[in-house]
Amino acid sequence: MGNLLAAQSGGPTAAINATLRGILEEAMVCGRYDRVYGGLYGIKGILEEQLVELSDVFLSPMDLDLLSRTPSSALGSCRYKLGDIKTDETVYAKLVSIFRKYDITGFIYIGGNDSMDTVNKLSRYLEQRGITDICAAGAPKTVDNDLTETDHCPGFGSAAKYIATTFSQLERDLAVYDTFGVTIVEIMGRNSGWLTAASALARQNGDRGPDFIYLCEKPFSVERFLEDIRSRQSEKRGILIAVSEGVRDEDGKYVTETREDSRTDVFGHRDIAGTGKVLEEIGCKVRSIELNLMQRCASQAASSTDLLESRLLGAMAVQCILQGKNGHMAVVKRVKNHPYRVAYTSVPVSLVANKEKTVPLEWINAQGNDIEQPLMDYLQPLIAGEVPFSLNNGIPLYFKIGQWNEAFLPEY
Amino acid sequence: MGNLLAAQSGGPTAAINATLRGILEEAMVCGRYDRVYGGLYGIKGILEEQLVELSDVFLSPMDLDLLSRTPSSALGSCRYKLGDIKTDETVYAKLVSIFRKYDITGFIYIGGNDSMDTVNKLSRYLEQRGITDICAAGAPKTVDNDLTETDHCPGFGSAAKYIATTFSQLERDLAVYDTFGVTIVEIMGRNSGWLTAASALARQNGDRGPDFIYLCEKPFSVERFLEDIRSRQSEKRGILIAVSEGVRDEDGKYVTETREDSRTDVFGHRDIAGTGKVLEEIGCKVRSIELNLMQRCASQAASSTDLLESRLLGAMAVQCILQGKNGHMAVVKRVKNHPYRVAYTSVPVSLVANKEKTVPLEWINAQGNDIEQPLMDYLQPLIAGEVPFSLNNGIPLYFKIGQWNEAFLPEY
Repeated sequence: MGNLLAAQSGGPTAAINATLRGILEEAMVCGRYDRVYGGLYGIKGILEEQLVELSDVFLSPMDLDLLSRTPSSALGSCRYKLGDIKTDETVYAKLVSIFRKYDITGFIYIGGNDSMDTVNKLSRYLEQRGITDICAAGAPKTVDNDLTETDHCPGFGSAAKYIATTFSQLERDLAVYDTFGVTIVEIMGRNSGWLTAASALARQNGDRGPDFIYLCEKPFSVERFLEDIRSRQSEKRGILIAVSEGVRDEDGKYVTETREDSRTDVFGHRDIAGTGKVLEEIGCKVRSIELNLMQRCASQAASSTDLLESRLLGAMAVQCILQGKNGHMAVVKRVKNHPYRVAYTSVPVSLVANKEKTVPLEWINAQGNDIEQPLMDYLQPLIAGEVPFSLNNGIPLYFKIGQWNEAFLPEY
Repeated sequence: MGNLLAAQSGGPTAAINATLRGILEEAMVCGRYDRVYGGLYGIKGILEEQLVELSDVFLSPMDLDLLSRTPSSALGSCRYKLGDIKTDETVYAKLVSIFRKYDITGFIYIGGNDSMDTVNKLSRYLEQRGITDICAAGAPKTVDNDLTETDHCPGFGSAAKYIATTFSQLERDLAVYDTFGVTIVEIMGRNSGWLTAASALARQNGDRGPDFIYLCEKPFSVERFLEDIRSRQSEKRGILIAVSEGVRDEDGKYVTETREDSRTDVFGHRDIAGTGKVLEEIGCKVRSIELNLMQRCASQAASSTDLLESRLLGAMAVQCILQGKNGHMAVVKRVKNHPYRVAYTSVPVSLVANKEKTVPLEWINAQGNDIEQPLMDYLQPLIAGEVPFSLNNGIPLYFKIGQWNEAFLPEY
């Protein structure tokens, strides 16, 4: 026997707690652990010995269900990266000594590329030191969907669904006036355009969806952008545009950055490389919308597929440890699309750490202003299914912040 | 017999189509109308004779149900205001001739202060001309909740619920790092702070909610704002702030406007009167979030209470016409709070037109950075109840844009 430790890292999502639920449930049924600890604030908190006993807190299936439907990282997070094994050896030794103190034989880190770097380094350290009774594994998580080796990432489906839902609502909002105008919606994604592409899912129920979609995988041309808009100018209605926050011009310069010569529009937003001014000159009203943090935490539009898969990837990570697969990350493989079928397996985390999976260029149209059907086919199953949410006093009932530990957010 | 005409005006909401449903259903059961027409794009479209026969389109109760759960104005909208009766007489005469052509004996305009001005002027014109066989009535609508004479306005409850829900999610998102930082959420409301106040509803399920709430009813002091933030600076967590877009300083100057000397933050947003710079100087990370159009069209967080009341106010407007109450607006009166009970009645629209109801100053705390309990008590019942929404292909199933008329948005 021994104990299991789980922690969360990187940006929160609507599905990361579902993965934690999967870990807890698998630990409950496998019969191999006395206790499950949660590391607060990721690896940084673990190094400060901020450990709480999760098996004490969870007593009911309903608690676990509520946890999985609660957005954001219930254990807290960090953006701390472990240093090189050679130069930072004391940090690794400290981690192992904390693991020993709490009799931890398995450690699961839920996170993205950076977190998988931590799992990779820690597992290599354990290997190099001949420590065979401690095993480290990873469970994927990122709304950006940019982890390699896995078909898609927990958290992405819910964010994609929020974006598709929001576009279907914005389209209706913009349709009310019979005047031409441009609304530009900026979507998360510095280097990968997966989330921006998800705006196209708003077209499914016979709606028009975004008029143009610009992913950061292709260089953005201001001239072409203006040409695209002009091509629709005869229409008496609002034009809806989806753009990745990470779009760059031919020289690799971010075009949504505030520039010396750019001006903010009437809503105070940056515009795309001064296009707002040009658009105004051609008599075009412009509005910018940033989906901001809502796209990763708006759980009222969560994807049931996403939450169910996220839970099983947590369970799969426990299985990696039980099977002695030190340094593995749980992944989901797509078996087929129609009907949608997946399988759960694992890969060495070294294949994932610090790598980014971007949208294949052949899934973007030649003009660079829309996506191709194979990308729609890829995205569609990931947003399927509604997650029921309980209301209390008119707002969603969530797992309580600070339920783990009185010391965690003391004012609650 | 004769026909009924309904139209929508002003900014769309998540509940304005519920009011239209109420009009259609009441027209169906009262047995006094042959047809119900919809005026596309408000009074502007009616003047262009853009009328569609709604009674042709609606055949099933499910269609009407879907309509009421679809955000935005299904008939389109306008921001056109009728001129003075004396100077713009030809416009009024044209309206009456169109009414005569289509045998319209009742006209209902769903909208806010400006739309009620239209109803007021039109009804006075009819009266002055001795036209007694045409009757005009208003049905209230505005997310701003700033109409007088009615306890609250259709559309407000759903927007308030979206804001409360979003704050409960943002609070979780911001809790993941154990570092101090400030997130400022800007909420609709140029002259009234009702929607901003609704952020406090996030506190109901034991959460902390916004740390500070600044409504536009009280002058905003940058010094006090910074002092408020400093008072929390010892806490290792994110500070969440709700602010009306319309906050003004002592001199009446909008403080969220882009100023010559202000700078945009890393997210490209305007900051509050340069506070971002000051906050950075005291070592504080700042993020701005604008809830933008989502707060009026995010129907996945709609309030059942709001939609049910909105429907009955539509029915009540039909009753105004049936009872010959020319120039009346349907209103909802609160009978009591515990349990929440309301009554539907009507008032002369002259009492409502061009007036604004702001948050009573005694409902704002002395420091001007939070709301008082009576305001919580006022807000709470308005967000009660979940609106079930059907998913199709993973996104909400909505009433189709352009279902009314092929000429309405021809590309759909």
